[in-house]
Amino acid sequence: MKERKIMMFDHMEGDEDMKFVTAYAGSDVFVGVVHENVIVHLSRADETIPNTMIECVELGESFIEKVERVLQNVHPEWTYALCDVQLLAPIPRPTKNIFCIGKNYADHAQEMGSEADRENIIVFSKAPTAVIGHEADILRHADVTDQLDYEGELAIVIGKKGKAIPKEQALHYVFGYTIINDVTARDLQERHKQYLLGKSLDTSCPMGPWIVHRSAISDAHALHIETKVNGEVRQSATTAQFIFDIPTIIATLSKGMTLEPGDIIATGTPAGVGKGMTPPRFLQSGDVIEITIEQIGTLRNRVK
Amino acid sequence: MKERKIMMFDHMEGDEDMKFVTAYAGSDVFVGVVHENVIVHLSRADETIPNTMIECVELGESFIEKVERVLQNVHPEWTYALCDVQLLAPIPRPTKNIFCIGKNYADHAQEMGSEADRENIIVFSKAPTAVIGHEADILRHADVTDQLDYEGELAIVIGKKGKAIPKEQALHYVFGYTIINDVTARDLQERHKQYLLGKSLDTSCPMGPWIVHRSAISDAHALHIETKVNGEVRQSATTAQFIFDIPTIIATLSKGMTLEPGDIIATGTPAGVGKGMTPPRFLQSGDVIEITIEQIGTLRNRVK
Repeated sequence: MKERKIMMFDHMEGDEDMKFVTAYAGSDVFVGVVHENVIVHLSRADETIPNTMIECVELGESFIEKVERVLQNVHPEWTYALCDVQLLAPIPRPTKNIFCIGKNYADHAQEMGSEADRENIIVFSKAPTAVIGHEADILRHADVTDQLDYEGELAIVIGKKGKAIPKEQALHYVFGYTIINDVTARDLQERHKQYLLGKSLDTSCPMGPWIVHRSAISDAHALHIETKVNGEVRQSATTAQFIFDIPTIIATLSKGMTLEPGDIIATGTPAGVGKGMTPPRFLQSGDVIEITIEQIGTLRNRVK
Repeated sequence: MKERKIMMFDHMEGDEDMKFVTAYAGSDVFVGVVHENVIVHLSRADETIPNTMIECVELGESFIEKVERVLQNVHPEWTYALCDVQLLAPIPRPTKNIFCIGKNYADHAQEMGSEADRENIIVFSKAPTAVIGHEADILRHADVTDQLDYEGELAIVIGKKGKAIPKEQALHYVFGYTIINDVTARDLQERHKQYLLGKSLDTSCPMGPWIVHRSAISDAHALHIETKVNGEVRQSATTAQFIFDIPTIIATLSKGMTLEPGDIIATGTPAGVGKGMTPPRFLQSGDVIEITIEQIGTLRNRVK
């Protein structure tokens, strides 16, 4: 039975219909799927589909089957035009801190004045209170930091509970992928040694615009990633440059720590952050950051 | 109105009845208060009292008023003998990682081979999946670490939402206090540079046995703290030795990051951890760790 389902997913590679959003319309917050330029309200289409992304992810593969059935015959009354909803972060409130991988691209480690450690993954976290969605404002926090910086990153959304996950099985634990801007107060990051505070200012975790199901990503280790600030390209790389690939990340984190559905792991940022420039160029009010990852989309936020 | 309530709490100093537990009896998980050696099932006594600790904490001072009314006339059918329930961690599943303060006692910084930084607080976190209660087993994780260590700590439970909380008001944001054993895999802590992984192994955050409401603690900065391993005293200190006091911790964390009801902040550990001994003495299967903090109680856990 399990074999059959996995095969079915393999057939779905490149599926355009597997972008899941958490959206807000009127006073209603719901999980939707992007379909031919509209958003389908999933729990309205099928009342057995839950209304929060984490519950949908927890359903596992039966969630995808339900969505496929919905998409076979979409009624207009289930749909919203994209312009009629506000996208929240796909998981607006993670149930724990967001895991983040440090120095996973060699040239970023270098621009930060260090060497990449190819043996041991650096893992830190961002508080879930920092999460905001696509097009939401990033606070400048001028009273707290003079060195607000961006970091464009591919993020993994975990699909099922697991501990001591072997590398060979790790990709089966991935529900999908999204984009995270790992906004960082460089002065706080340095001053407090451990990164948590400098990484957890309110609004410092833009996420979205949606989660793309893994079946729609041909190869997560061959995605172009680009970050623009006010239209100027600052980061341009490919996830093929990862020092630690996704199976290694999942295997390492889960070695003694249980991963759960809805857990989010940001995979690290390539070279080109503001601090790496000569002289450094930190974020100012009004700056617009756009992170584009191939096969996923663009996450855009303005600094207020 | 607010003034009156704060005054009322001041009168309650030293109140013996303000120990709140999350307990398990049969298939029922409930919030209780310890009262004359029994546990009073609060939502059974008053159906307007919620069944989870975080919801109770969110009620703020009206929760304490409700409890006081319940305790004026306790019916036997609301009570359990202590031996008839299993205590879970008072907050069995925090809604984000547990915040932890590093090197908040000068002599612990020294035994770890460094100097205490008296300017900048070190803040890291533990994943909420690591939380276990009083008397629950700590896994030895022999396949992941050779250097499992204990750290006895006073922990703060935040009572209300706040950002940029001034030091002078910080104690009003405290709901109460509990004990945390910040169990640490020293080899992972060192190898991964950022502490998260070495601090987040499953079962590495024993917490409890209860939360003592702040009204029952005369001065959180004058509490004796002692850790025993197999009956041998390893840590013996007082919270008067904190480098950063509780108002400074709360003000610093909340400067740009919103704190929420139910957030937990472990305040750091004094000298006497296993790694600081010559030669180092790490935890082995069968070891029993007891952390006692004056006016709170004793948190005991065995390494499996």
